[in-house]
Amino acid sequence: MSDQHMIWLALSTFLVLLMQAGFACYEAGMVRRKNSVNVAIKNVADLGTTIFFFLLVGNALMFGSSWFGLIGFAPSVVIDGSPPDLLMALFQAMFCGTAITIVSGAVAERTSFRGYLLLAICMSVVVYPITGHWAWAEGGWLLQLGFLDFAGSTVVHGVGGAIALAAVLRIGPRLGRFESEGSASYIEGDNLAVSALGAFLLMFGWFGFNSGAATDFNHQVPLILVNTGVGAAVGIVSILAMAAALGRKPKATEILTGMLGGLVAITAGCSVVQPLGAMAIGAVGALVAVWGLGLLERARIDDPVGAIPVHLFAGVIGTVMLPLFATPEHIPEGIGGRTGWVAVQALGAVCITGAAFVVAWVFMGVTNAWARYRVSPEDERIGLNVAEHGAGTAMLDLLNQLSAQGSKGDFSTPVEVDAETDAAIIASFYNQVRERFVREADRSRRLLDEAARLALHDPLTNLKNRRAFMQAAAMVMADLNRYGGDAVLVMLDLDHFKAINDTHGHDVGDAVLVELARRLSLAVRDSDVIARLGGEEFAVIVSHATLQQGMVSARRMLHTINGAPFEVAGAPNAALTVTASLGVTALSRHALFDHALKAADEALYEAKRAGRNRIVPAGQERTEPAASPPTPRHAPSGGGSGDPLAEPSTA
Amino acid sequence: MSDQHMIWLALSTFLVLLMQAGFACYEAGMVRRKNSVNVAIKNVADLGTTIFFFLLVGNALMFGSSWFGLIGFAPSVVIDGSPPDLLMALFQAMFCGTAITIVSGAVAERTSFRGYLLLAICMSVVVYPITGHWAWAEGGWLLQLGFLDFAGSTVVHGVGGAIALAAVLRIGPRLGRFESEGSASYIEGDNLAVSALGAFLLMFGWFGFNSGAATDFNHQVPLILVNTGVGAAVGIVSILAMAAALGRKPKATEILTGMLGGLVAITAGCSVVQPLGAMAIGAVGALVAVWGLGLLERARIDDPVGAIPVHLFAGVIGTVMLPLFATPEHIPEGIGGRTGWVAVQALGAVCITGAAFVVAWVFMGVTNAWARYRVSPEDERIGLNVAEHGAGTAMLDLLNQLSAQGSKGDFSTPVEVDAETDAAIIASFYNQVRERFVREADRSRRLLDEAARLALHDPLTNLKNRRAFMQAAAMVMADLNRYGGDAVLVMLDLDHFKAINDTHGHDVGDAVLVELARRLSLAVRDSDVIARLGGEEFAVIVSHATLQQGMVSARRMLHTINGAPFEVAGAPNAALTVTASLGVTALSRHALFDHALKAADEALYEAKRAGRNRIVPAGQERTEPAASPPTPRHAPSGGGSGDPLAEPSTA
Amino acid sequence: MSDQHMIWLALSTFLVLLMQAGFACYEAGMVRRKNSVNVAIKNVADLGTTIFFFLLVGNALMFGSSWFGLIGFAPSVVIDGSPPDLLMALFQAMFCGTAITIVSGAVAERTSFRGYLLLAICMSVVVYPITGHWAWAEGGWLLQLGFLDFAGSTVVHGVGGAIALAAVLRIGPRLGRFESEGSASYIEGDNLAVSALGAFLLMFGWFGFNSGAATDFNHQVPLILVNTGVGAAVGIVSILAMAAALGRKPKATEILTGMLGGLVAITAGCSVVQPLGAMAIGAVGALVAVWGLGLLERARIDDPVGAIPVHLFAGVIGTVMLPLFATPEHIPEGIGGRTGWVAVQALGAVCITGAAFVVAWVFMGVTNAWARYRVSPEDERIGLNVAEHGAGTAMLDLLNQLSAQGSKGDFSTPVEVDAETDAAIIASFYNQVRERFVREADRSRRLLDEAARLALHDPLTNLKNRRAFMQAAAMVMADLNRYGGDAVLVMLDLDHFKAINDTHGHDVGDAVLVELARRLSLAVRDSDVIARLGGEEFAVIVSHATLQQGMVSARRMLHTINGAPFEVAGAPNAALTVTASLGVTALSRHALFDHALKAADEALYEAKRAGRNRIVPAGQERTEPAASPPTPRHAPSGGGSGDPLAEPSTA
Repeated sequence: MSDQHMIWLALSTFLVLLMQAGFACYEAGMVRRKNSVNVAIKNVADLGTTIFFFLLVGNALMFGSSWFGLIGFAPSVVIDGSPPDLLMALFQAMFCGTAITIVSGAVAERTSFRGYLLLAICMSVVVYPITGHWAWAEGGWLLQLGFLDFAGSTVVHGVGGAIALAAVLRIGPRLGRFESEGSASYIEGDNLAVSALGAFLLMFGWFGFNSGAATDFNHQVPLILVNTGVGAAVGIVSILAMAAALGRKPKATEILTGMLGGLVAITAGCSVVQPLGAMAIGAVGALVAVWGLGLLERARIDDPVGAIPVHLFAGVIGTVMLPLFATPEHIPEGIGGRTGWVAVQALGAVCITGAAFVVAWVFMGVTNAWARYRVSPEDERIGLNVAEHGAGTAMLDLLNQLSAQGSKGDFSTPVEVDAETDAAIIASFYNQVRERFVREADRSRRLLDEAARLALHDPLTNLKNRRAFMQAAAMVMADLNRYGGDAVLVMLDLDHFKAINDTHGHDVGDAVLVELARRLSLAVRDSDVIARLGGEEFAVIVSHATLQQGMVSARRMLHTINGAPFEVAGAPNAALTVTASLGVTALSRHALFDHALKAADEALYEAKRAGRNRIVPAGQERTEPAASPPTPRHAPSGGGSGDPLAEPSTA
Repeated sequence: MSDQHMIWLALSTFLVLLMQAGFACYEAGMVRRKNSVNVAIKNVADLGTTIFFFLLVGNALMFGSSWFGLIGFAPSVVIDGSPPDLLMALFQAMFCGTAITIVSGAVAERTSFRGYLLLAICMSVVVYPITGHWAWAEGGWLLQLGFLDFAGSTVVHGVGGAIALAAVLRIGPRLGRFESEGSASYIEGDNLAVSALGAFLLMFGWFGFNSGAATDFNHQVPLILVNTGVGAAVGIVSILAMAAALGRKPKATEILTGMLGGLVAITAGCSVVQPLGAMAIGAVGALVAVWGLGLLERARIDDPVGAIPVHLFAGVIGTVMLPLFATPEHIPEGIGGRTGWVAVQALGAVCITGAAFVVAWVFMGVTNAWARYRVSPEDERIGLNVAEHGAGTAMLDLLNQLSAQGSKGDFSTPVEVDAETDAAIIASFYNQVRERFVREADRSRRLLDEAARLALHDPLTNLKNRRAFMQAAAMVMADLNRYGGDAVLVMLDLDHFKAINDTHGHDVGDAVLVELARRLSLAVRDSDVIARLGGEEFAVIVSHATLQQGMVSARRMLHTINGAPFEVAGAPNAALTVTASLGVTALSRHALFDHALKAADEALYEAKRAGRNRIVPAGQERTEPAASPPTPRHAPSGGGSGDPLAEPSTA
Repeated sequence: MSDQHMIWLALSTFLVLLMQAGFACYEAGMVRRKNSVNVAIKNVADLGTTIFFFLLVGNALMFGSSWFGLIGFAPSVVIDGSPPDLLMALFQAMFCGTAITIVSGAVAERTSFRGYLLLAICMSVVVYPITGHWAWAEGGWLLQLGFLDFAGSTVVHGVGGAIALAAVLRIGPRLGRFESEGSASYIEGDNLAVSALGAFLLMFGWFGFNSGAATDFNHQVPLILVNTGVGAAVGIVSILAMAAALGRKPKATEILTGMLGGLVAITAGCSVVQPLGAMAIGAVGALVAVWGLGLLERARIDDPVGAIPVHLFAGVIGTVMLPLFATPEHIPEGIGGRTGWVAVQALGAVCITGAAFVVAWVFMGVTNAWARYRVSPEDERIGLNVAEHGAGTAMLDLLNQLSAQGSKGDFSTPVEVDAETDAAIIASFYNQVRERFVREADRSRRLLDEAARLALHDPLTNLKNRRAFMQAAAMVMADLNRYGGDAVLVMLDLDHFKAINDTHGHDVGDAVLVELARRLSLAVRDSDVIARLGGEEFAVIVSHATLQQGMVSARRMLHTINGAPFEVAGAPNAALTVTASLGVTALSRHALFDHALKAADEALYEAKRAGRNRIVPAGQERTEPAASPPTPRHAPSGGGSGDPLAEPSTA
């Protein structure tokens, strides 16, 4: 190998290496931020893995002595390689790395790192070397047929694309991509400007990719370089023209896809066509690649970066088309002219990509149990930066915590993120706002609760007031009407309250009411409703009780009142005997509560008229005197015997 | 062309190609995120366009047989090019791409994609080939004069900068850049670290840019490379030194601008000066470029990335300065020494950049109607990523929706973004917080409204209470005082209410009040104010009514009360005849409402005294008995005839 | 120098230059966004500085005629360099730039730009040329001993790492990195995908780095290139294998560190070992580098990008290990076989890195007062993009303002950011939400305050109501009980109020109560508690007053009432003489307020009984008639003399 040859090969090797950076950028810009590190690191790791295994094993299988044109055998180049062999092996290793990296974009955002690396090893040791042997190694069966793929439209890009297709069929689409029935959801990438940088690096590297294998510098290389440049240029221009013809704006992804499609398509024939031919091939490749984007979407196959249309579709079409534009002197003898050559090209393209597809499909099926190619849905949602590499996550951590708080509607706890990150500034701000908000909301709620309590409770006794009693009664009636059951209404009026006020003053009167409320509260169940309707009038709804049970309750109430003197601060002897009159009625389903109120009221007046300190059930003449009818000590002698109808409010 | 020459030219081509990636990064980092994809894709698209059209057409015009030194003619290189011609054409196409890409930065953030591509085609087909012919083609008129621009300070950078200047003058500054009177608003770029990467790639590529045209490897190339490196280095160092001399910190953009200015300036003379000369030229170029940044700002010319100072200003100064530092053996014979040479250089620089400016200016003027170079203000606000490429927008979509909600102050609807993006996490969180907030606010408002209602309404009748009535009265009075008009106050007191209470009990009394309120509400208009002031006393403000009209209203009120018996649950015969007494007074502008209240009250008492069930206008002796004065069935016989002054509260 | 040699050297120079971009990306991705521009610009600036000073001075010291093997002397290459010398000097300048850039990552996020550049100048003028002279210059003492460091594991990477170590020890860790006692806080970088791009660029450049010095193309270069590729590959693979062996996932940073560690380690011996040897050296280098990450953390040394483990640790180990794997023909004669060679290698590694460490340590100590290597804590918190370069800050500005608002809990002012940035959209949204929130909160608060006021105040007089009075009394009692002191309770009842109502109507009665409240309010101090308990009954707590002082207050109250007639709108003669009776009692510590209330009430009734219009202290028979006992003009003659116990509510 001459010095020039070696320099050129080394330069080409470097350029192809930089394509890895190009792929990493291209893919990182097209996936979501939560997966960008994963995509980039996958490209780093597969490059290392590929160089290692291809140099150790793959190169020997690819370029060793051919066994029936199917596979080669030789000692590993790292043991016994001459300098030119070593350099060529390194160049080929970069090619192999390219084929593998194509897969990484297609399976992005949902594939396990472990599974991907396993697939990369399989490709660098088995698939790529063997299919490559067919087309490129001395003695390869396709080479012998006249198959021409100068720089790898099929051997590199087609193989990468075919394995990518097998892989995405195996692992399925990303969550959320095809979940709605009708149309696919577009999952937007992080930053297409990064993808554009990747496209530049890819184009840059492609010059080395296509021309590295040239041996005749002065004549072959300039043509290859121009055709490569033309392929990229026409790929871009044809998409711009297509969009203009359709009267719409070209999408950024279409322009990038078109450029790569043009480059992939011209790769096979870059050494045998003239620039005008390269224009035709590049344009077709670009259009096929962009058309393929839509085809995959319609087929509900999820390829986040368009790797399959670009590398498989454009690769195959470029390989098959090249005989149509090859300059005459390049047509192999005895192949049957351009037509026959097209057939050979098609045969080669199908066999190579088909073999790659089948091996990858089978391999992934066999190894899936161990490799677990698809990550868990949780990991997919969190993103592979975190799930697979523990990388770059403070901001996403924060977002996920915020999201969890939001979906539970529970903002009661602060979020936590690592200190000293940008996300920590946001988190700290959020926590402080959150605390302030919670404090404000608590305060509002407390004040509102207090206001509601004030509006619905009697300030003296803290029992429900008339309004609240009517609301509660309405609910009881609604329950009765809906579910049936029993309930009893008890109206209670303190006897001779005016006399107490007059004798001992209002504050003793108030204290008596407070004590009465306390005793009543003890005499009823929690589920009962108890209210002060005004003055010395109280009401109780005994729930889930028949009239009989209600009467029992009423007796308990009366006994709790007249059973022991009231010890009231301020009363002269510190103890007052207090009695009350009660009217009781059952609440009937579908009856009006107002009627019940009226009935209980009438029963109550009946009790007053009958001598007070007793209970009268509604609609009954018979009154029920209190078990121990005491003589009120402090009631004025003339009180309580007047016509109750004439002075109900002073009873 | 020897193998070495070809390898070197190919390598240089690759390096110049990478400058496109450098420009893309440099510019993408200096524009706002919403335009970063647009800038990057513009660079991709213009590269494709340029290579395509320059190879097809431009190269022939530039390097074909010269027609009076002004333009060349030849068949297209893609049809009939020899390998060396093809390679040289590719190299020149990369140069042409560089000149064009310079424009993209200057017009960034406000130029339509379509317009930019049209300009790129014009440049690659017309402007660049013709001006390039003058300086570089065999027979070019400037070349014949002794004009030297070895690698394109003027031919590439000056032309790009001149067209950029024409373009930014045509399309104007970005929205918000020069809107305030006094000073320019600095519009901050997305990420200067990306620009720094771009600067490295540019410097890397520049080595190929400057040395690709060398033919004498062993002597010329090392000097060119060192001078190139020195140009960049001295560009940086001179800005650091300048800042230190001024006692301030150098801005990041100044350092980058200085480096590029140094590189642009040394480009013309890199093959004819020694490193010390390169230092002088690079330093001047850097300082001129940084000075130009301020000059443009003062001239209110908006160049987001500083393309004009770097490429036009530093390019021209480098071209003009080179004779001063060229080693003696490079001074052309017969040109008049260094002085004459400087004049030729200045002539060339002015003619080339002037021609480029004029052609671009005219071309844009002529084609603007079709190309619409400037995007719409909406598109500019949304950002060209979305507007031109449908790219990279979920986060900005979200921000724009949030912003719209904020500016309308309407947070009642959720925001919507594409599922499965990072922005979707934020959107979901915001929506949940928003819903919670709206729910809380609704609940607070409901409770507050309820509390306010409770505080301002009579619990029994749900009419306004005294407090609310006084507030409403104050507003009515304020309206009267401000706008004039009429209004009438009616005071109404139920007759013999105590007797009803005493006869039928309080609950019947309450029911009568409720029914009265209902009837009153029907008798007045919505715009009237109606209140229960306490006990059985009601008040109505009849708005927009003279006293006469008020009397009509009062009659309607009385009739609605005494016209039909009250059917009240609990009353013995289920129907009570109820009457009322009313006092009426007009509300006068600028009078005290308290006086009106007093007057109506007095009229009311007059009505009572006159036998009740009637209406008395204030200040009139004559009472107006009710149209149908019924005999209250249930009123106690002795009631109602007492002195009203003696028992107003029991009337 | 042959054409091929020159092309190769130039190509290598370009590649090494691109390593600067690689370092910039690698570091920018590993620091926080707030420092990413600083890191990138530092790399730009140090490259310019290094090229400038190394070409001017450093190259002559490194490669000039040796003075005892310690240092070289020659004229500056920029003055008198032959083309090959110039090219070699440029190549060496790129090496020097690499050594310096290594430092920038280690000191990132806390070092001043000025200080860093000073250190860069010191390195390019002094440290690197001198230690480099020892190993690489003809006559260098280590070279004479047989020391081999083909491409700079020690000379470049070790020196950079050693100076980095000295620098981070001088400036200390970043804020927040080692603040907690137990464990270090991991400070997450901005975007490891950018670091991965940097790693690709570094690997790409490394091929030039390692092979640029080769002179025998056909034999040496292929081996070097393969060994370089193998070093990177095995670095990656060994980390993957290590993680698999440990049963865990490899971190992204570990994979990148491993790759660089492998590259650094193979650099010294890339020309003398076979690929299998390169595998061993690369694997050890990678593992040592990753192990070093943990070691530094345990030693509480803060190196944000892992520069010290990668470049110093892996560099030294690679230098020392190479004799073990060198092919026999490369073992220097007379060095004592592999063992002796290892000793020489170790000596060289220790001397070179030790010298670099010591010089940097001393230099920084001496110059620190002027250079202020460590930025201020504020600048460190704000981030160096802003603090040092005025770059890229709108979003961080916004975050900092938000954070400040949050930490103060004060959201009352809008945030401000430059218009026309993405951050401005967020800021505008926040401001609008903030305004809405503040408005809502204000409204809620106002309504709640109003509701609370309504619940706790008498609607007629706006004095406290009974409930509020009891609350205030409870607080007064709590104060008394806790701190002691005196207070007095005054109960006040308007005399003959029923007569006023009966004579003049309720509205006059109400007006009297309002006027009374007004006068009472004027008669007490702000710190006193004043309430209307109901009807015409008022109560005052005179705070910080003995009974004597309380009596004085009570007299002032009575006087303010009976001292002047009440002018009330609506009263016939527009003036009523009003009197009141007052009961006064001292509030005792640890007594029940209810008892005091009772006592004051009894005193009040005593006052009534004694003829009204007077003050009675509790527990005293003696009544205190009013200073000026007027005769109520409008009181009915029979009023006021009845038994007060019989009609307390009409008193």
